[in-house]
Amino acid sequence: MRARLEELGAIGRTPEGGVTRLSYREEHAQAARLCARWMQDAGAEVGVDPWGNLFGIVGGSGGAPRPIAAGSHLDTVPNGGIFDGGLGVVAAIEAAAALRAAGRRLRHPLMLLGFAEEEGVSFSLGCLGSRGVAGRLPALQALVDRTGRSAADAIRAFDPGVPRRAMPAPPAAYLELHIEQGPILERQRTPLASVDAIVGIARMSFLFLGEANHAGTTPMEGRRDALWGAADLVAQVREMARATEGRAVGTVGQCTVSPGVPNVVPGRAEVTVEVRSADGALLDRLCGGVVAAAQTCAVAYGLTVEHRHGWTEPPVPLDPRIRAEVVAAAGDLGWPIATMSSWAGHDAKILAGIGPTGMIFVPSAGGISHSPFERTGWEDAARGAQLLCRALERLDAGDES
Amino acid sequence: MRARLEELGAIGRTPEGGVTRLSYREEHAQAARLCARWMQDAGAEVGVDPWGNLFGIVGGSGGAPRPIAAGSHLDTVPNGGIFDGGLGVVAAIEAAAALRAAGRRLRHPLMLLGFAEEEGVSFSLGCLGSRGVAGRLPALQALVDRTGRSAADAIRAFDPGVPRRAMPAPPAAYLELHIEQGPILERQRTPLASVDAIVGIARMSFLFLGEANHAGTTPMEGRRDALWGAADLVAQVREMARATEGRAVGTVGQCTVSPGVPNVVPGRAEVTVEVRSADGALLDRLCGGVVAAAQTCAVAYGLTVEHRHGWTEPPVPLDPRIRAEVVAAAGDLGWPIATMSSWAGHDAKILAGIGPTGMIFVPSAGGISHSPFERTGWEDAARGAQLLCRALERLDAGDES
Repeated sequence: MRARLEELGAIGRTPEGGVTRLSYREEHAQAARLCARWMQDAGAEVGVDPWGNLFGIVGGSGGAPRPIAAGSHLDTVPNGGIFDGGLGVVAAIEAAAALRAAGRRLRHPLMLLGFAEEEGVSFSLGCLGSRGVAGRLPALQALVDRTGRSAADAIRAFDPGVPRRAMPAPPAAYLELHIEQGPILERQRTPLASVDAIVGIARMSFLFLGEANHAGTTPMEGRRDALWGAADLVAQVREMARATEGRAVGTVGQCTVSPGVPNVVPGRAEVTVEVRSADGALLDRLCGGVVAAAQTCAVAYGLTVEHRHGWTEPPVPLDPRIRAEVVAAAGDLGWPIATMSSWAGHDAKILAGIGPTGMIFVPSAGGISHSPFERTGWEDAARGAQLLCRALERLDAGDES
Repeated sequence: MRARLEELGAIGRTPEGGVTRLSYREEHAQAARLCARWMQDAGAEVGVDPWGNLFGIVGGSGGAPRPIAAGSHLDTVPNGGIFDGGLGVVAAIEAAAALRAAGRRLRHPLMLLGFAEEEGVSFSLGCLGSRGVAGRLPALQALVDRTGRSAADAIRAFDPGVPRRAMPAPPAAYLELHIEQGPILERQRTPLASVDAIVGIARMSFLFLGEANHAGTTPMEGRRDALWGAADLVAQVREMARATEGRAVGTVGQCTVSPGVPNVVPGRAEVTVEVRSADGALLDRLCGGVVAAAQTCAVAYGLTVEHRHGWTEPPVPLDPRIRAEVVAAAGDLGWPIATMSSWAGHDAKILAGIGPTGMIFVPSAGGISHSPFERTGWEDAARGAQLLCRALERLDAGDES
């Protein structure tokens, strides 16, 4: 598997040692071509669906018509790592190859997946490929990249040398192996996790309005400094998230000040607040708390505040039976396994909308991802792949659909 | 005086009701031409010096060769008010006209001044004109505006129709009437102030460095969020300045965050800090306090901080004899007068480097300046002009230089 991951990771390799494989570009087509060959070597019939997702199907022994699916995505962020996405695709192919080598055939068809545009780099919409499969996509003509090219045109030009076909959907089960992209497993010294849910995300932005004024002649007690309110909210978001003791995170990632010169009291300050939690009720409570805190921060400094944008994606719980089979499979193999939530979005979050879905995490060294320094130990990666294979066998055995 | 201020204020009038009179442009030349005519009407011989400053000299009765000077600046910020600068120039002309009308001639020559480029809008250097007079100016060829034109070229093209001549300097005394540009006199319900000092200004910038990271997968306890440090410093600067109880102000006017997207923990955050005080020792103490606070804020959140830029202009005390004569002149006229510091820079700050200098403030409605809404009551403006005239008479009587 290491050889395959390294060969795949060489496609789009950057001088910094990372990999840039943007969806539907030549590097993506090359990667899909390579994986299609591996899929065929493992006995699969391959295709590319209308959203540029690569899939391969190994026929089942019968009696269970809907496929069991495994995979991840083939695209990367600019200068990202080779494990993010690639690990899950290669591990699914390895599972098929291992079963074939062992002369084993699953009852269900086994579907191997390499989704497109999970990272959302080109069209500002994450999980474009899996959204297509799940029927949760706006018109491809309406999605346009920076150069003005539509997703429809990009996908039309995407040519991995694989027949265009419809993917059989929904699968009876979808299981995705992925790197954690955070430091939790490494800190816990646990090599594996079964993912119980993918966190919900709430995003808000607040515009504090005070009065721009001369930084010399305006006494402190007369100031209506918009940045005072914004800075106070930064601290309050931190403290609210910390108080959940690991059940939520909160981030102020943007802060813009106007007029933004050293000798003028800021009249406007705008911040974004993002809150994530796997607990939907907690997420809602935190959103309410942030809005109330913004109001308190405004009043404290004689400001007004506008709650400008806001959207919430609720948490997505993963399938209990798949979670249980993953844990049981780890037991079969004699490995410890944790249960944790995924703090990032994944194709599995979308697939969970159309069928039973699970995820396996392996550790990310230092919690680093989206970076040339992203790394997962080869032993950890191999354990993840073996667990995936074992769990697929268990799912195959226990399901009649 | 109201008629003159309104006539002057009509030059460069904007649709918003403000005035834009940028140095050395046509509006500035028109304003200088008008003031030169008024100066001549008041018996003065006029000239424009090598920095574009307009001056007029009314001969003295003898025995005191060095002039006593009064005036302010003729340029404005974009869309500023008619009183900022204009009031001091017109009031000096009114004083000369009033003395002439009363048949009084001072012992000293009386010099009327209309400085250029006090606001520093065109060449990013405040008080360009008065700096030239004081010998505190870099080469005019090296000062370049946004269009690439040098100050030397701009001044060469500046043509108010007045002979180019050297200004006799330094004057025996310089007294400038100006609007306060802050709310203090209005709050105190005092119509006049003698200015005891022009505040010192210290400017610093701090770059907080943490670690940019995924806003979902990075637990709160592992974060090194640069904005946490910056936001904490915003609060600490406010509290340090507030604790001086009116003896200093502190402002964070700029805050920039990188990478500056909602779903990434900020890895870098840079803020500017400006501190002002008329008390040089306090200013130094506050600067030390801000640097220490930045360090504390960094350590508290696992960040490092770079103290990037920094400069300090020390406070400039104004001349005790002139201050006393201004207060005595107010007594002559039966008007209450406060003593306060100027929280903004003025040509008087530069002139104080070459000779005895004083300032008179009149109230600014709502503390507003650099705005079309800048306003000083006509009664307050007239009181300021009469006080200027009376103080000039006192200075003339009491000085032999």
